[in-house]
Amino acid sequence: MASALDFMLAARRSEMQGLRSLELTCELVGCIGRLIHALQRERGFSNIYLGSHEERYRAGLDDLTADSQRMQQQVVECFARIDLESGCGADKARLFNHIAYVLHYFESFAELRRRIRLLQILPMDATRAFSRPIKGLLNVVFEAADTAVDPQITRHLVALFNFMQGKELAGQERAAGVAGFTLGYFDPAAQAHLRFLEDAQKRCFEIFNDYAEPGLRRLWRNLRADQTVVELARLRQVALRSSQASPIAPALAEIWFELASQRIDVMKQLEDQMTEHLHSQCQRKILQAQSDLDNHRALLKRLASLDEDASLLATRVFNLQSTDLDASDSLGGQLNRSVMDVLHAQNLRLQALGVELEEARRSLNERKLIDRAKALLMKQHGLTEDAAYRMLQNAAMERSQRLADVAQHLLNYAELLQGKAKL
Amino acid sequence: MASALDFMLAARRSEMQGLRSLELTCELVGCIGRLIHALQRERGFSNIYLGSHEERYRAGLDDLTADSQRMQQQVVECFARIDLESGCGADKARLFNHIAYVLHYFESFAELRRRIRLLQILPMDATRAFSRPIKGLLNVVFEAADTAVDPQITRHLVALFNFMQGKELAGQERAAGVAGFTLGYFDPAAQAHLRFLEDAQKRCFEIFNDYAEPGLRRLWRNLRADQTVVELARLRQVALRSSQASPIAPALAEIWFELASQRIDVMKQLEDQMTEHLHSQCQRKILQAQSDLDNHRALLKRLASLDEDASLLATRVFNLQSTDLDASDSLGGQLNRSVMDVLHAQNLRLQALGVELEEARRSLNERKLIDRAKALLMKQHGLTEDAAYRMLQNAAMERSQRLADVAQHLLNYAELLQGKAKL
Repeated sequence: MASALDFMLAARRSEMQGLRSLELTCELVGCIGRLIHALQRERGFSNIYLGSHEERYRAGLDDLTADSQRMQQQVVECFARIDLESGCGADKARLFNHIAYVLHYFESFAELRRRIRLLQILPMDATRAFSRPIKGLLNVVFEAADTAVDPQITRHLVALFNFMQGKELAGQERAAGVAGFTLGYFDPAAQAHLRFLEDAQKRCFEIFNDYAEPGLRRLWRNLRADQTVVELARLRQVALRSSQASPIAPALAEIWFELASQRIDVMKQLEDQMTEHLHSQCQRKILQAQSDLDNHRALLKRLASLDEDASLLATRVFNLQSTDLDASDSLGGQLNRSVMDVLHAQNLRLQALGVELEEARRSLNERKLIDRAKALLMKQHGLTEDAAYRMLQNAAMERSQRLADVAQHLLNYAELLQGKAKL
Repeated sequence: MASALDFMLAARRSEMQGLRSLELTCELVGCIGRLIHALQRERGFSNIYLGSHEERYRAGLDDLTADSQRMQQQVVECFARIDLESGCGADKARLFNHIAYVLHYFESFAELRRRIRLLQILPMDATRAFSRPIKGLLNVVFEAADTAVDPQITRHLVALFNFMQGKELAGQERAAGVAGFTLGYFDPAAQAHLRFLEDAQKRCFEIFNDYAEPGLRRLWRNLRADQTVVELARLRQVALRSSQASPIAPALAEIWFELASQRIDVMKQLEDQMTEHLHSQCQRKILQAQSDLDNHRALLKRLASLDEDASLLATRVFNLQSTDLDASDSLGGQLNRSVMDVLHAQNLRLQALGVELEEARRSLNERKLIDRAKALLMKQHGLTEDAAYRMLQNAAMERSQRLADVAQHLLNYAELLQGKAKL
């Protein structure tokens, strides 16, 4: 029969187990970051190849494909280490489902690459075919952040997820830019898309900035003042002023690609620092938890050995209950006080942990709200994702409200309008 | 190497496992309800025995003690069936810790009962010695509700938890009434306590009403119109008008106990219905999930058997990716569409589940907020729990705001005042 002390120990072990599964999660997130980076490069360069139709780009493209394949293999190996029987609820179910998407998308890469090399696909379609698996991979990172059990690690994962998301938008911007510059101009839709990508990046990096460590924030500020970024901003202005009537020199495509790639490569370095930091944090936490667990076990063992006379213990527990104050006058009182102290301390710590975790997950919950509001607008007005996002963004600006608040209100009123609200 | 289909299946199994662990939880909650009920009766009757000093009550008390012990044994057996290694995070850790409290309290019962029989304890202290383990048991139910993975079951558990909490307050009211009537009067502190218990009950039953099924709500409304309740309200007025100067006949104690017990017994019947309903809901869900899982497995098997030519599948997936619309013109397109359809459907369902679950847990989160605000006020002003609650309640009334909103604002401002807020 399990005793109070057994359950106290099981509580600790349960925390420990949560941290251990986080360790694999952090490793997975690192692998995913590297694969996304490789796919982003391959996506951008594929557009150069498709746009220029020049065979001299072929070898470079093959190198990038080989990189992607190597990274994909690492992700697949990481997936294979996940215990498929470990799931205990909808949280894990969501994670598994997103992994299933990713694996399903992986199966299409061989055909995509064949068509690119045969020039049998439009740049826009190639971009899309690369962007979906990347989005799927980011969803895996999102679920990893959403199911992490440690507040500090959750904060790191939230910062990292938003950074990766921002970097992906920068990658899409690179591809969109290459497509437009190669064509010689950007039509109004392409220009609107460029503006959307810039705004959406800004929002991601703001959240990154809210959640990242000061050291990483400093590095990010330095990067933003870099000459590459200034040059890119200039080229973006050229793109936004272009039209079919006044085309741009297609040679700018390669310059744009180089500059955007330089910026993204520096982002990747920062991302690598974050994954390393995450990994070491996770290991530090596990060591700490292991040492706490050992101490805890020793303490409980000591308490249990003192606890041979059951009736004496009962008197002690009861003393504490009935008076609360005068129980410290004897060894019995002291002992009992320490069982209660350990219980109380553990309880307060777990409560605080829960509050911090909720706090750390706030931006993830806001993202879910925004996604739901976007989906609602897309369905209601037959909009694209970009357009739905812009609609929300305009509403937020008009009302001087936060995007998440507008999304929440929109969803509330939608319930009311559709008669789903509780009366 | 696990495939997309393996992960899709694992997602389903993971949901299934969550439901299975819910089944044990629901059983545990039922056992806990029965133990609490027995302890409540024993607590109330102990006060009659302690107040009257009459030996004729002894046999009745012994019967109630035997009931409590039998129910306690069932709870302990239920605890023993919990897999102590199944924990995977802070959620389970909180549950285990609350169970440790309860087991620790159980050890004090023998001594408590010995002292009651020797009349070596004040009624107030005896009440407290029973009330703490009951509070501990209710905390276990709260954690069970907070970690349930199904929105509908969570709603039932929230309704049940609040009902049990309200019933416990009714039990405390019974004990407080017996103490005062036996003494012959209620001093101002005792009267304030009676008022607090009435208000707090009201709040619990309001939440019950928000979350319970219509059938249960109807039963509850009927109970409230019952003659017993009217009689009790009349006696409560007598208590609130009493003073040391104008005492009441101590014989009212037994009448009060009988009436309050009748009311609580009817509550117990309603509680039993809720636990039964919970149990059958849980089994229904498990059957449904099992049948879904079987269908899913068959579907995936069919898809996998069609999926022998990898390059063909790649073409299909890719077709879908690049055009989204014209992929349904072949068996390949159809097949691929169904893998994607299953993935999308599963994803949408899991998302909706997450939203519903959050919705169902809202009142639990509000309770956590209120508890934190209460703890803050108790610490800040050295108040009792009752007094801190009244302070919050008055603030809510003055501002015409909900209790949870006042608690949230209080906590926000406390952070600001203590310089913890993010600037």
